[in-house]
Amino acid sequence: MILTVTLNAAVDDTYEVPDARTGEVNRVAAVHRRPGGKGVNVARVLHGLGHDVVAAGLAGGAAGRQIEEGLGSLGVPASFTPVAGESRRTVTIVGPEVTMFCEPGPAVTAAEWAAFQDGFETLARDAGVVVLAGSLPPGVPPDAYARLTRLAPGPVILDADGDALRLGLAGRPDVVKPNAGELARVTGIGDTAAGIRALRAAGAAAVVASLGADGVVAATPDGLLRAALDRPVPGNPTGAGDALVAGLAAGIADGLPWPDRLRRAVALAAGAVRSPVAGEIDASAVPSFLPHVTLRTEENHAARPHE
Amino acid sequence: MILTVTLNAAVDDTYEVPDARTGEVNRVAAVHRRPGGKGVNVARVLHGLGHDVVAAGLAGGAAGRQIEEGLGSLGVPASFTPVAGESRRTVTIVGPEVTMFCEPGPAVTAAEWAAFQDGFETLARDAGVVVLAGSLPPGVPPDAYARLTRLAPGPVILDADGDALRLGLAGRPDVVKPNAGELARVTGIGDTAAGIRALRAAGAAAVVASLGADGVVAATPDGLLRAALDRPVPGNPTGAGDALVAGLAAGIADGLPWPDRLRRAVALAAGAVRSPVAGEIDASAVPSFLPHVTLRTEENHAARPHE
Repeated sequence: MILTVTLNAAVDDTYEVPDARTGEVNRVAAVHRRPGGKGVNVARVLHGLGHDVVAAGLAGGAAGRQIEEGLGSLGVPASFTPVAGESRRTVTIVGPEVTMFCEPGPAVTAAEWAAFQDGFETLARDAGVVVLAGSLPPGVPPDAYARLTRLAPGPVILDADGDALRLGLAGRPDVVKPNAGELARVTGIGDTAAGIRALRAAGAAAVVASLGADGVVAATPDGLLRAALDRPVPGNPTGAGDALVAGLAAGIADGLPWPDRLRRAVALAAGAVRSPVAGEIDASAVPSFLPHVTLRTEENHAARPHE
Repeated sequence: MILTVTLNAAVDDTYEVPDARTGEVNRVAAVHRRPGGKGVNVARVLHGLGHDVVAAGLAGGAAGRQIEEGLGSLGVPASFTPVAGESRRTVTIVGPEVTMFCEPGPAVTAAEWAAFQDGFETLARDAGVVVLAGSLPPGVPPDAYARLTRLAPGPVILDADGDALRLGLAGRPDVVKPNAGELARVTGIGDTAAGIRALRAAGAAAVVASLGADGVVAATPDGLLRAALDRPVPGNPTGAGDALVAGLAAGIADGLPWPDRLRRAVALAAGAVRSPVAGEIDASAVPSFLPHVTLRTEENHAARPHE
């Protein structure tokens, strides 16, 4: 079983407002509503691929019920710890431009966080891989991901930003998946290879840096690998990062070596870009992308053996 | 008892985003959430003034539960007819500008609309005044307000826009409360006095046109009256129209003659403007506004006796 953790799960609302105008009252032409948060998105992709997955996290209030009901109707097994606060919503306005508004999330009490950790410890025992992904709601300690990583007996993938990522590294996660912006923010280094080295020095056993259309650069025990598609994929990049993480988790669960893990993850991300619906995957297109993922070994100085 | 009807009730979310930017991902600094829709707002004001009120309407899904729970926590008696669809949300972004996004509302089935009318007929029998306010959700017939007006044995106040207002006039409501924009849209006439005459010709027994800081012009059986404050009131006009309607309903319920009804309604609207929270009323300020409401009779040609 693959366990995903979404401490700041969300109801993701997308509003189609073709002629949206700032400073006005806008009628929303269509509303799309789905359970979200990075870990929830990863769980959805894995479930869609036929993997045995459990989506865990914190959920509260009307939005929390919508998250659990939404996962239920998708058939994704969920195990959320209840919180008294209201889970967050995100609202994305799709008009002449795409604008997103993200609520901060519920205030989590120490007792709720303790209850989550107890449940997590039990679930993680049965997990072949644990995915820790997304932001932390108010009240959850900033080193939450380090604590959870230490509680998990198996491999952990961490996908976060800012302090949640920086302090999470102390838990020595097996794989960290930053994008270019997250890598630069957490290390203060603009160069990808140097940033990856800094993440490894801070505790990450392996790093997979996602670079959008340029694919990924991965510092692994097999060396520094670069995987990318040999052709551009037109579409919507929303959700590609979550699909990439799902591919890495699936690769670990299936015992694939690093090169095959990366190939599959990059092909899955391309399937997310290709899908007409943001955050969904065009699974039928994924096999056709696989032969077009090129893999090459980079100069070796950024790689070091798995400790 | 005063009965308010909100067929398209809403969860009103206000997001504080001091540095909101179009085309970006914006973190929301603070979220304010309250049950809304015009009739719900009118019921809140009336309840706050100590009136016996029932808020009726349609409610469904997670948002519908939030509306009913929100009214419950405020102590406002509610009688909503359940619908299978999801009640709408509105999101107001308060940043460098104020931008509002309004969902269309749930698709209402014929059976749900019939169930509402049955419940309404029963409630309206005990109502001294009925307030019909706000937009109609998809599926509710566009002449809904005319039908409900005919079902109500007592006086009806109608506050709506567009077709809901235009077709509602055929039910011969006792009071219609358009603002300047609604009046112009529904009549196609820019002049206030001429627009009011057109509304009366179309079925409104009395018309109270709200003109913002210029107060109200009211065509009543007592003639054409203009009521306004003798001084400007700084503040937030959000909710002033709902407070005005609440004042008119309270005046009818208390048997006040038209001049006193208008004085009270204008003072209440000023209390809404004065309140630091949009949509709330500074009730303590209302008595101090009353002596400052000036009332004068306009030239008589727009008035005609109540038919």
